[in-house]
Amino acid sequence: MKAVHSIPVAIAFGLGSSVAIGNDDLQERAQMLFDPIPDSAASHIDERNEMTPEKIELGKLLFFDPRLSASQTISCNTCHNVGMGGDDNIPSSVGHNWQRGPRNSPTIFNAVFNVAQFWDGRAEDMTEQAKGPIQAGVEMNNTPANLEATLQSIDAYVDAFEDAFPDSEQAVSFDNTAKALEVYQATLITPDAPFDQYLKGDTDALTDQQIAGLDAFVNKGCVACHNGVNVGGQGYYPFGVVNRPGAEIMPEGDTGRAQVTETASDAYVFRSPSLRNVELTAPYFHSGNVWSLQEAVSIMNDAQLNSLLTEEDVVNVTAFLRSLTGRQPEVVYPDLPLRSESTPMPDIPDYPRASGAEG
Amino acid sequence: MKAVHSIPVAIAFGLGSSVAIGNDDLQERAQMLFDPIPDSAASHIDERNEMTPEKIELGKLLFFDPRLSASQTISCNTCHNVGMGGDDNIPSSVGHNWQRGPRNSPTIFNAVFNVAQFWDGRAEDMTEQAKGPIQAGVEMNNTPANLEATLQSIDAYVDAFEDAFPDSEQAVSFDNTAKALEVYQATLITPDAPFDQYLKGDTDALTDQQIAGLDAFVNKGCVACHNGVNVGGQGYYPFGVVNRPGAEIMPEGDTGRAQVTETASDAYVFRSPSLRNVELTAPYFHSGNVWSLQEAVSIMNDAQLNSLLTEEDVVNVTAFLRSLTGRQPEVVYPDLPLRSESTPMPDIPDYPRASGAEG
Repeated sequence: MKAVHSIPVAIAFGLGSSVAIGNDDLQERAQMLFDPIPDSAASHIDERNEMTPEKIELGKLLFFDPRLSASQTISCNTCHNVGMGGDDNIPSSVGHNWQRGPRNSPTIFNAVFNVAQFWDGRAEDMTEQAKGPIQAGVEMNNTPANLEATLQSIDAYVDAFEDAFPDSEQAVSFDNTAKALEVYQATLITPDAPFDQYLKGDTDALTDQQIAGLDAFVNKGCVACHNGVNVGGQGYYPFGVVNRPGAEIMPEGDTGRAQVTETASDAYVFRSPSLRNVELTAPYFHSGNVWSLQEAVSIMNDAQLNSLLTEEDVVNVTAFLRSLTGRQPEVVYPDLPLRSESTPMPDIPDYPRASGAEG
Repeated sequence: MKAVHSIPVAIAFGLGSSVAIGNDDLQERAQMLFDPIPDSAASHIDERNEMTPEKIELGKLLFFDPRLSASQTISCNTCHNVGMGGDDNIPSSVGHNWQRGPRNSPTIFNAVFNVAQFWDGRAEDMTEQAKGPIQAGVEMNNTPANLEATLQSIDAYVDAFEDAFPDSEQAVSFDNTAKALEVYQATLITPDAPFDQYLKGDTDALTDQQIAGLDAFVNKGCVACHNGVNVGGQGYYPFGVVNRPGAEIMPEGDTGRAQVTETASDAYVFRSPSLRNVELTAPYFHSGNVWSLQEAVSIMNDAQLNSLLTEEDVVNVTAFLRSLTGRQPEVVYPDLPLRSESTPMPDIPDYPRASGAEG
């Protein structure tokens, strides 16, 4: 895991430069700083977890199956909704027994291109990541043993695991569940955003306002943390490096990467989020309390850039960010395999049922 | 609303007859008692709520949109999962603030063919039905005013409502929401089950065991309450008419239709459920505490038929019921319309967020 933790790009590309550059130059510079979303993520994970059709198919079943959770009511798609930009559009997810996680659910779209997973990057890849929410007490609250017993009890899953993992001694396993989930989620990418078309050479793909926003984004420092194929997600940076945002945005108790590395200098360091499809994924920041994209840009301007962006820049950068919305994945809802009589029961805390006629 | 509340069919067709009949006769009798699922439900609702493509498209967005609930986390599909036979496969649904409803969530598949909706038939049609869960405190806990404000704040919804309801003075409305949901749900039908093929003339569509089960089903009384296109769902019948099941299966506090009609003789009367796709919709009964289909058949044999079915009949009837699984609807997950800055916030009861690094 690379621990990039500085702002070299900002310096290299002239943080604070006020020299206007031509549109051709801007496009060239953008092509150096960013990459278009490719049509497939296979080259990113194939070496360690090959994207076979069998794994994709299995991972898709698992992704939509609420039986991955102890209560059998919460699926991956509950908090990473494929119809809502790959997240849940609420401050922090509602999990088992209506508990709430501490951080805003990140989108899974294009997550395969991030340097690591979770806001603090504590999972090296999406296989490791997938094991988190399944076991987290405030999310799915399941155990590997109960999950394996559930999947093992369902004939169609046993077949699907054996097809997907022909070389595994024990095909139905927690590890293989996570691997299949990674492979399916690696299909959830969003190519062909206007910005991708621009990067590929179509200068008309962005509006004039978006080009002005890109100019500010590149030349006034945003690009320091938000670069690469995901326009972010590539490294770790201190939040509030210039001015510390209020507690609602940056709660004191959540010190981010310091909780992973146990290093004081990592306090309030987070993996920069990808800005791909950002207009679809409000509310913003790890705390999830800012609903307006323009307000989020303003907050970053103050916290990270010492208000180098003018008010007009903020408006233009916001317009530019809307050019990062790509073609959303087309997903046919899977028919989930039928339980058997030996499938474990749902574990739903014993809230009394309501009486009366509802239902 | 027809209030069929007797067992005339059972009598007309020889409840308790032990005369073996030929397979040709059985097929003819079945064709009189049942109808195949048609390819479209349009003729069932077009007269009062035309199934236009615009309403179907809008209704599909609404069906998958968690913003129909106050917390913005619960969609129709949460409890009526299109990948799980149209219900949630748990005893009773988990709703707002992790409350549980009193009754097992009925499948929406083929619900358009039922005489009325809900276990007690208190909604005449699926338009009326749709208004229930949206407002129920233990389900989505929303209000018509908040729902309308939410939809009105989202441009793509305003356009979709105007396209779907061009003659409405106020296109975006709670009533039209329910109408669009009915129309979309009327597309969620499951034709071409083996039993449908049998009804259409293919005698090889059922196994010998399933034919023996159909024979018992028709000639020993099940058909009294489970007939018509939905093999049930057509009338109201007392549960436990011969022997009253235990409180776990028939809780004393839930008197069913009596709570609707306020008529003593309707105590423990329920609308018979459709048995279409019944193998996909465990657990069974309005209380949702029986997980085995064969056990459910046994319970009905005792409760309603005074154990007229032999043990072998019970096994065969169970096999026959598995022939009622039709072609599941193919659903492409919709891209949900983007919220605006005036969209109401999610109303999530103020559970403290977990601390620590999860998320």
